[in-house]
Amino acid sequence: MRAIRLNGNQLSFQGEHPPVELDGFIKVDVLTAGICETDMQLRQGYMGFQGTLGHEFVGLATSGRFAGQRVVGEINCACHNCPVCHAGHPRHCPHRTVIGILNHDGAFADSLWVPEANLHAVPDSLSTDEAVFTEPVAAACRILEQVDITAESTVIILGDGRLGNLCAQVLSSTGCAVQVVGKHDWKLRRLRDLNISTVELSDFQPSKSADVVVDCTGSTSGFELALQAVQPCGDVVLKTTVAAEQSLHLAPIVIDEVRVIGSRCGPFAPALQMLADGRVQVKNLISARYPLEEAQNAFSHAEQPDTLKVLFDVADK
Amino acid sequence: MRAIRLNGNQLSFQGEHPPVELDGFIKVDVLTAGICETDMQLRQGYMGFQGTLGHEFVGLATSGRFAGQRVVGEINCACHNCPVCHAGHPRHCPHRTVIGILNHDGAFADSLWVPEANLHAVPDSLSTDEAVFTEPVAAACRILEQVDITAESTVIILGDGRLGNLCAQVLSSTGCAVQVVGKHDWKLRRLRDLNISTVELSDFQPSKSADVVVDCTGSTSGFELALQAVQPCGDVVLKTTVAAEQSLHLAPIVIDEVRVIGSRCGPFAPALQMLADGRVQVKNLISARYPLEEAQNAFSHAEQPDTLKVLFDVADK
Repeated sequence: MRAIRLNGNQLSFQGEHPPVELDGFIKVDVLTAGICETDMQLRQGYMGFQGTLGHEFVGLATSGRFAGQRVVGEINCACHNCPVCHAGHPRHCPHRTVIGILNHDGAFADSLWVPEANLHAVPDSLSTDEAVFTEPVAAACRILEQVDITAESTVIILGDGRLGNLCAQVLSSTGCAVQVVGKHDWKLRRLRDLNISTVELSDFQPSKSADVVVDCTGSTSGFELALQAVQPCGDVVLKTTVAAEQSLHLAPIVIDEVRVIGSRCGPFAPALQMLADGRVQVKNLISARYPLEEAQNAFSHAEQPDTLKVLFDVADK
Repeated sequence: MRAIRLNGNQLSFQGEHPPVELDGFIKVDVLTAGICETDMQLRQGYMGFQGTLGHEFVGLATSGRFAGQRVVGEINCACHNCPVCHAGHPRHCPHRTVIGILNHDGAFADSLWVPEANLHAVPDSLSTDEAVFTEPVAAACRILEQVDITAESTVIILGDGRLGNLCAQVLSSTGCAVQVVGKHDWKLRRLRDLNISTVELSDFQPSKSADVVVDCTGSTSGFELALQAVQPCGDVVLKTTVAAEQSLHLAPIVIDEVRVIGSRCGPFAPALQMLADGRVQVKNLISARYPLEEAQNAFSHAEQPDTLKVLFDVADK
């Protein structure tokens, strides 16, 4: 089958990659897949991943209870049998594989194999192009599981990229006051079109006033800015991993009794619901689409600072 | 009156310092006061404090509803009238003074002035030497307000100094499993005498297994060790301020979805109760006692690594 493979730091399209069927998992024939910031980090050596990339996808289940249906799949494949799983944290199972990220071939291919427990049917009302955003929308929904956000909360989101945009939409659904701080007027304008307040980074005056600050910058400067923007006893949510080491003063966390909360993968069911009922709008985040054969061009496009989301068209439904 | 003053980095005993009476506050005649790690940091320039040092004290209230009684006093003096106070965080009031730390003369003196709302009567059953530990015990009690710790929780405390000892005792009172990691066998032995589990740092094998890790090391290495010891979705409580900048990778916080919680001052009422009913034992933490006149010797003693708590005997009751 066709697959986009990572070997060392070398990305390559392979027209005849022999599929590795995973026993007990459901074969999913991929329709559409999206390139994520993590894919670009994996290419730089993050996690040391080798294999088929891709963890944002919509496909057709070929067997099991979703046979013939369009499905999306949670990416952490847990053992469901260890203390961490029993403690209710299967996404952190130390024995897990992670689709397209850790010991598990991913979705930039004609097919991938997914545990049935990870699959969710895509509602008929939801297009495949929208459903491919389920994984990043779920990551944004994770914040609502971790932090108490109500209609009275004030939330600042640092970063106007893909994830900042989705976090802003998901958190706005609570009725809270969201302000997005970004560097790109054209990205901020898309948020203003959704009635979300925005401010350019150069005009932003942090004032230790927000109940919650979400760092989606992916840069080392985001965390210190977040500490300047959050109120005493407030929450700073770290949504993006920064691979680089950085110099920091931790004393402000103690003095202001801030809670810093790491936030990663989230629940698919509410994400699908938010996409289906239109609370989260994603169609205007698609910057370009490529066939699998054009892997190099697609990744080059995704790496441009002006790009939001690049999709692979793998098959038609 | 007598007072130990900080001018620049110069600590000096003054036999005839003119008292500055604070209007509307209660004059408290000091009986005993304790030197805290923060006092030594203030002497190094922390907070830029200038004035009379001392924030751990027991005294006699000279007026108001506690007149004639032994009292201890919470150290943050809030305005009770701003958005932060109204949000329920008076200890973080931006207009506050902090006794012996910020714009408020402290307790290493014959008298100090304290808002009546900050005072708590010392139970008759509690000795003055024990009650002088109320402020640091309250700081340990703060953790119980911030983190859900039950009899089923596993807690690791990094650091076997004064604060590590008190945190271990306070958290043990919940019935949870506490283990203290330290460098000094004689300090760890005191904890084992209280039936608290201990391990030498050189023998400690962090295994991402603790529900809660409390960093009381006061050193830059504590935080990274805490991240290695806490389980996914667990809590790291930062209890000590480290003035120095440090190099850090924040990615593990995100990947393991750890919550990092800054923790500072705490509630006096439960601290007094724990001291009064013997759940927290402090008498064997007193290393030495000095009169105010021997300020230099007392601070030199407190700075020795083998010292736990140094007290000033200010007056007899």
